[in-house]
Amino acid sequence: MKTVGLIVEYNPLHNGHYYHFQQSKKSCEADAAIAVMSGHFLQRGEPAVAGKWARAEMALRMGVDLVIELPVAYSAQPAEWFAFGAVSALAATGVVDTLCFGSEIGDIGWLQAVADAMHQETEAFQSLLQQQLKAGVPYPAAYGSAVARYVKGTDPAELAQPNNTLGLHYLIALRRLRSPIQPVSVARQKAGYNQVDITDNAIASATAVRRIMFEQGALAEIAPYVPEATMAILAREQAAGRSPISWDRYTKPLLLQLLHHGSAELAAFHEVSEGLEHRIKQAVSGLSLGGEHVINDLIDLLKTKRYTRTKLQRMLLRILLNHTKEQLRPAVLAEGVPYLRVLGFSDKGRALLKRMKTAAKVPIVTKVTSMTGTCPLLQMDIQATSVYALGFEAASERELFRDYYEPPIRL
Amino acid sequence: MKTVGLIVEYNPLHNGHYYHFQQSKKSCEADAAIAVMSGHFLQRGEPAVAGKWARAEMALRMGVDLVIELPVAYSAQPAEWFAFGAVSALAATGVVDTLCFGSEIGDIGWLQAVADAMHQETEAFQSLLQQQLKAGVPYPAAYGSAVARYVKGTDPAELAQPNNTLGLHYLIALRRLRSPIQPVSVARQKAGYNQVDITDNAIASATAVRRIMFEQGALAEIAPYVPEATMAILAREQAAGRSPISWDRYTKPLLLQLLHHGSAELAAFHEVSEGLEHRIKQAVSGLSLGGEHVINDLIDLLKTKRYTRTKLQRMLLRILLNHTKEQLRPAVLAEGVPYLRVLGFSDKGRALLKRMKTAAKVPIVTKVTSMTGTCPLLQMDIQATSVYALGFEAASERELFRDYYEPPIRL
Repeated sequence: MKTVGLIVEYNPLHNGHYYHFQQSKKSCEADAAIAVMSGHFLQRGEPAVAGKWARAEMALRMGVDLVIELPVAYSAQPAEWFAFGAVSALAATGVVDTLCFGSEIGDIGWLQAVADAMHQETEAFQSLLQQQLKAGVPYPAAYGSAVARYVKGTDPAELAQPNNTLGLHYLIALRRLRSPIQPVSVARQKAGYNQVDITDNAIASATAVRRIMFEQGALAEIAPYVPEATMAILAREQAAGRSPISWDRYTKPLLLQLLHHGSAELAAFHEVSEGLEHRIKQAVSGLSLGGEHVINDLIDLLKTKRYTRTKLQRMLLRILLNHTKEQLRPAVLAEGVPYLRVLGFSDKGRALLKRMKTAAKVPIVTKVTSMTGTCPLLQMDIQATSVYALGFEAASERELFRDYYEPPIRL
Repeated sequence: MKTVGLIVEYNPLHNGHYYHFQQSKKSCEADAAIAVMSGHFLQRGEPAVAGKWARAEMALRMGVDLVIELPVAYSAQPAEWFAFGAVSALAATGVVDTLCFGSEIGDIGWLQAVADAMHQETEAFQSLLQQQLKAGVPYPAAYGSAVARYVKGTDPAELAQPNNTLGLHYLIALRRLRSPIQPVSVARQKAGYNQVDITDNAIASATAVRRIMFEQGALAEIAPYVPEATMAILAREQAAGRSPISWDRYTKPLLLQLLHHGSAELAAFHEVSEGLEHRIKQAVSGLSLGGEHVINDLIDLLKTKRYTRTKLQRMLLRILLNHTKEQLRPAVLAEGVPYLRVLGFSDKGRALLKRMKTAAKVPIVTKVTSMTGTCPLLQMDIQATSVYALGFEAASERELFRDYYEPPIRL
């Protein structure tokens, strides 16, 4: 059974994802698909519009056979660690043959050449990168520009496109892990990553779909752009008060965290770097809770040329979740995922899980109680579910601690 | 200028308070009145229905000449520390001649006899008290019962009435501080402390008044029971989204605190004693956010015969405010208030402040910036204002950090 691995967020799953999924299975001639999916909190430092079980169900209904949760330790991270965590999960299954990802460029050869040159970052490269950062260039642009100087023939503008960047880091991670998984890239179609306009009758970016959900508030309006199953699941989640979730739901909890910690304490949280703790304290003192999007206002107050919105969102998320630098230090992350948390599976997925019993390199978790207390990263995922549920209209005790109650979804 | 000192919460100020105020000035033949008033958080471990500036204004409009804030370190405390903090503030002014307080019994002689016997607690008394506590008797009842055995002729039921208990501790505090302030007690009229029914055409307890505000939601309904100024101030605060405030407004921030701290960390918070940290963790895992009064539900889950509701509310308040045992250790509290924070004054109050410039035993704070950074207790008051403002419908930056902006109210 030839198996393709996918790295996804499905926030929410839309027709573009569906197209990519079909392409991926076809390009890789795959019989089965495993998706590693961010849990409740995503790479850009945002809460997902719907929770991890809802989005896992969307994936299964589309045809994914096994959904594994990317631990929050890796999911809300810059491209390097996000990619490393996700690829380490696919590698740890022991059953994935190919990794298929969408990129703006679509040309694996070009990306592979860069990855080959980059998989061990030299001092020369680090010095090029630091030069840019010291000049105040934001990290993603600085990275792209340093790579372009370091690897001849690289176009920094092309590299800086978000899916090319992620793709490069998937390839680097595969090399670092000495994984036999074969990478394949398919060109992304129609809608750009962050594009907010609807560009086609059937395909819109996830950003555009979310904008409709939040701004127009009428779920029915997204029907043309998402599979029927996504519609049904989102409608159910909305009726239960669990969707659509945005940063706005966490204003007061985040504020409490920011009020309770002095700048020295703030500096201990993950991603609070380079004196940002003082900037945060200053921004909070000028913050009004009167606006509609207070966290957004806070980010506006924090923003400089140097820090991307995404970087600042991730930082605030770590503060909300109480995640420290110590908990997420490079030595911990460099180990790769210490478990494979199963969110759901199909019949074919059950067969994959059976093979994984012997092939997997880390424990497979279908019941969190099997590992709680012994695994700090799993504890963070359970905790993240509770914090996420604080954003619901009225979370029940089962929703606050759902990891303890919810078995994998079986399709 | 003969000056009477009062210890108050005015939550909100009603006709019963007005009656007591007139009685106090008359009984003490006082020309001026100073009130030491709890800030945003009260002795029973609750947020005030309206903020400290609003309630100070009610006091001034009634005729109080100077309102001093009782620091939150003392305000949300059991009777002993609440009384000690408040009396230390009156003593620190250097200008108060008498302390006038309401009590159920009204008989200062009887209370004074108990205070004389009690102001230095002996080992014999402590052992009587511990005996009761070990048997699982809640603290207030155990204290009353131990006193009754220790001091002949004391009626434990009478002593356990809340204002008699407070009165006793005012007297004990005066003795400990060797203060020359003369205590006077006036019998409380008409409505009991917690009585929830309206017992008279014009006088209702603060509990009853708040019940109308919250349950019926129509502010106009309390008009018969409060002075006109109170009505006007509450109407203004309500229109500004700053009142009525209850524990319900802090559900999610409190939950975040409870989720983020393991039991060992919870045990570091003030009032989390005797293994209550484990009980809290257990209670949280059974908590649903679906109810109307989630904190109340949480207290129901925590409640045993041993712990009064008030004790549990105070404990949860300290967790919400992030106040540790270390910050509020007896050695810190036993120093008495380290500053006198002026919330407002009348013309006569201005004259009192002038005398206090030489007479006061601690710094007088009219601008918090004069002492911030150097005084941890003042920092806690500023922080408490921010947390309190998280309960507003939409707090502005001025409201979140109002201590920095708000000069004393001048009438």
